[in-house]
Amino acid sequence: MPDAFHMTPDEFRRHGREVVDWVADYMERVGELPIRSTVAPGEIEAELPLAPPEEPEPFDALLADLDDVVMPGITHWQSPGWFAWYPANASGPSILADLVSAGIGAQGMLWATSPALTEVESRMVDWLVDLLGLPDTWRTSVGPGGGVIQMSTSDSTHLMHVVARERAVAGGAGTDQLVAYGSAQAHSSVERGARIAGFRHVRLVDVDSDYAMRPDALEATIATDGAAGLTPAVVTSTIGTTGTGAIDPVARIAEIARRSGIWHHVDAAWAGSAMCLPEVRHLQAGIEHVDSYTFNPHKWMFTNFDCNVLWVADREPLISTLSIVPPYLRNEASESGAVIDYRDWHISLGRRFRALKLWWVLRHYGARGIRHHIAEHIRLASELARRVDEEPALERIAPAQLALVCFAHRDGNEATDALAAAINAERRVFVTPSQVGDRRFIRVSIGQTRTTATEVDRLWDVIDQALR
Amino acid sequence: MPDAFHMTPDEFRRHGREVVDWVADYMERVGELPIRSTVAPGEIEAELPLAPPEEPEPFDALLADLDDVVMPGITHWQSPGWFAWYPANASGPSILADLVSAGIGAQGMLWATSPALTEVESRMVDWLVDLLGLPDTWRTSVGPGGGVIQMSTSDSTHLMHVVARERAVAGGAGTDQLVAYGSAQAHSSVERGARIAGFRHVRLVDVDSDYAMRPDALEATIATDGAAGLTPAVVTSTIGTTGTGAIDPVARIAEIARRSGIWHHVDAAWAGSAMCLPEVRHLQAGIEHVDSYTFNPHKWMFTNFDCNVLWVADREPLISTLSIVPPYLRNEASESGAVIDYRDWHISLGRRFRALKLWWVLRHYGARGIRHHIAEHIRLASELARRVDEEPALERIAPAQLALVCFAHRDGNEATDALAAAINAERRVFVTPSQVGDRRFIRVSIGQTRTTATEVDRLWDVIDQALR
Repeated sequence: MPDAFHMTPDEFRRHGREVVDWVADYMERVGELPIRSTVAPGEIEAELPLAPPEEPEPFDALLADLDDVVMPGITHWQSPGWFAWYPANASGPSILADLVSAGIGAQGMLWATSPALTEVESRMVDWLVDLLGLPDTWRTSVGPGGGVIQMSTSDSTHLMHVVARERAVAGGAGTDQLVAYGSAQAHSSVERGARIAGFRHVRLVDVDSDYAMRPDALEATIATDGAAGLTPAVVTSTIGTTGTGAIDPVARIAEIARRSGIWHHVDAAWAGSAMCLPEVRHLQAGIEHVDSYTFNPHKWMFTNFDCNVLWVADREPLISTLSIVPPYLRNEASESGAVIDYRDWHISLGRRFRALKLWWVLRHYGARGIRHHIAEHIRLASELARRVDEEPALERIAPAQLALVCFAHRDGNEATDALAAAINAERRVFVTPSQVGDRRFIRVSIGQTRTTATEVDRLWDVIDQALR
Repeated sequence: MPDAFHMTPDEFRRHGREVVDWVADYMERVGELPIRSTVAPGEIEAELPLAPPEEPEPFDALLADLDDVVMPGITHWQSPGWFAWYPANASGPSILADLVSAGIGAQGMLWATSPALTEVESRMVDWLVDLLGLPDTWRTSVGPGGGVIQMSTSDSTHLMHVVARERAVAGGAGTDQLVAYGSAQAHSSVERGARIAGFRHVRLVDVDSDYAMRPDALEATIATDGAAGLTPAVVTSTIGTTGTGAIDPVARIAEIARRSGIWHHVDAAWAGSAMCLPEVRHLQAGIEHVDSYTFNPHKWMFTNFDCNVLWVADREPLISTLSIVPPYLRNEASESGAVIDYRDWHISLGRRFRALKLWWVLRHYGARGIRHHIAEHIRLASELARRVDEEPALERIAPAQLALVCFAHRDGNEATDALAAAINAERRVFVTPSQVGDRRFIRVSIGQTRTTATEVDRLWDVIDQALR
């Protein structure tokens, strides 16, 4: 009997409802759960047998273990009291689109393997060009640029280093002589992506007092490297660093990149979502001159992980670096040149229907809804920054231009760490203690899907009490 | 009003049921749908506006467009009549686990960011070591090896080339002098992964009459490259090539790799799942001597995409290549060395809870259920191979050792392509026409979750009719 072990469609219907209810219940209660898991290393593993069961287990047992085994080991990124690292936003329409994608189970490596996956994706990345005020020539339907969904910013940034490397090598450089640049405050994925791509020389350029890259320092470093016989190949600017939300001067860096003939990549992983608001777009001034740009709808645009978007100003160098076509993938549509084969736009071959999440999120919220919630997060952050500024015991250590507020205790690192510990002891709010130079500070990132004034007030109450 | 645009938990409950029903209905009807989408390039895009809507749209509109806009552009990988490329299996427990993962929306980059994600994953890859008869030292809980979930085989294979590159460079070689090896029948991800990792020299080694790599040819090529001043760095063996299912002689290649001091990676993307059956494990003889090994539960183990697993025999070179720790990711648990931080095991930083799919699939089916369905697919393939062998007009062009049957029309390429076209014209079955050397052939891959004798009989009936 062939169906002996499969879940039948009727069983799926029944268990699917149970799981939907479980998730809806989770959404309702997540705000009241202690955000941080407090299990010790090995505690979850100890609940799991060493080998898979020989016999099938009933679905009830799976669902029960979700509460009994898994939940104690979950740190609740979807809690509205989440102010740690950056958010990883989920939302109802996104989760349900992801369920449809899993249910359809189609592959989008080629246009021909399921045309809807490619065409919805190319249209969704065009929609984002519109929503975020990006250059019109990045629209896949206009060109010569285009966008693609990747897994994470680390993947996109690594890939741009690969493309830059190939361009420099085609120009006669040796791989081991290539140099990559980012600011000293760039995310670790810049140095890491460069090293994975084979760069032996990575320069972390000095920053100014706002932690933004100093263009003069970049230019001087490029000149020194060139004089030493090395080949500068790529610079990454950041719009909204992970450390403190710093904004590198993209327009000035673009000018240097152009003069030096190097690839210019922009990491706007977190801040990119904010560009739906025309009033903050001055922060991305100059992007019409860059070679590539990446941001994460899965951080701050209500689209669950993974959904990173990469645009290139010219798709040719990307495709020519990644395209290798074996006989079993040849097909008429691809050979006609009339379609996009996203296989040639990233390292993976297989790809799921991730564009459906974007389609459902953008339609469910509408551009107006997206702008409303992101503007509200920024307003909450500026309100928190004002409170910090008015509190004599505290000092902001960086501008709060979007929704990241960074501050320290004026009494020094120990007092700052003690304050962070006091905040996180409340358990329904969670912040990340961090460090810049020798200085410890507290990062408050406001952007979880359901964060409202209630949670920011709660956070402030804990701070206020801890300081008394 | 902060909830103005969000889907409330109650709305999620209601719409979630609608989507579950949609997916259950899809499961029920997918076998009767024409498998291949016949839309023309641009046809789906033409249904989509050029910019996102300004105002929110009702959920009904999203669901309606799934049928009206998306479905015409879907090629149905989940149809039981799917014999094309390789399967990309979904199943009820996998889809529902993926829904839970999206709903929880937690990040597993570090143990500390959600301990359950890491500990369930490290136990699940250990379960697979048990299920597939892999070396005990690859168990994360035993070591020095360990496993990790990646996105696709292309990612794992690329990454192993990066690690091999770093090992060779640490040994004094120049990046531009490194050489990577695979067979002439290796998947394109081997050459592509090598080139993305910066290899300037990739050798596709001769194969024997069964399309398996010739160890003598590998050894000779390595010697020639060494004599020419190049540095051989990595060889990839394939257990079950995509072209014809060929099995490279892993034990003999391992011996050559050991003698030459090069990294030995094994791509068992498709065939790996079959190793749950002890009677076919002779095909992976020698894997206890390799450096890394990858296979895809998302191909043939009822776990929806993406779920690729990579094991390394020694985790140290992988972690030391990928680990860079910025201040905002430092934490006590990581610094104690008592936990795994999977961030250091792949290019991405963020990672969703993909291990939950494996946990639910392995428990829902039990080891017995997994073995039952895979054995049944192999039995159906050997039955089809027998029919092909008994049909005078047809000729098998490669051994059918697992569940891939490759054959051609004896009248030559035109007759073979005509037969493939006739098969695919039936629309409820779908095969991939391919080519090896100058010879066109038809690949029949049996392994879709719900493929039974009914669909294989249907396929044979079409073949039989086309040949009369």
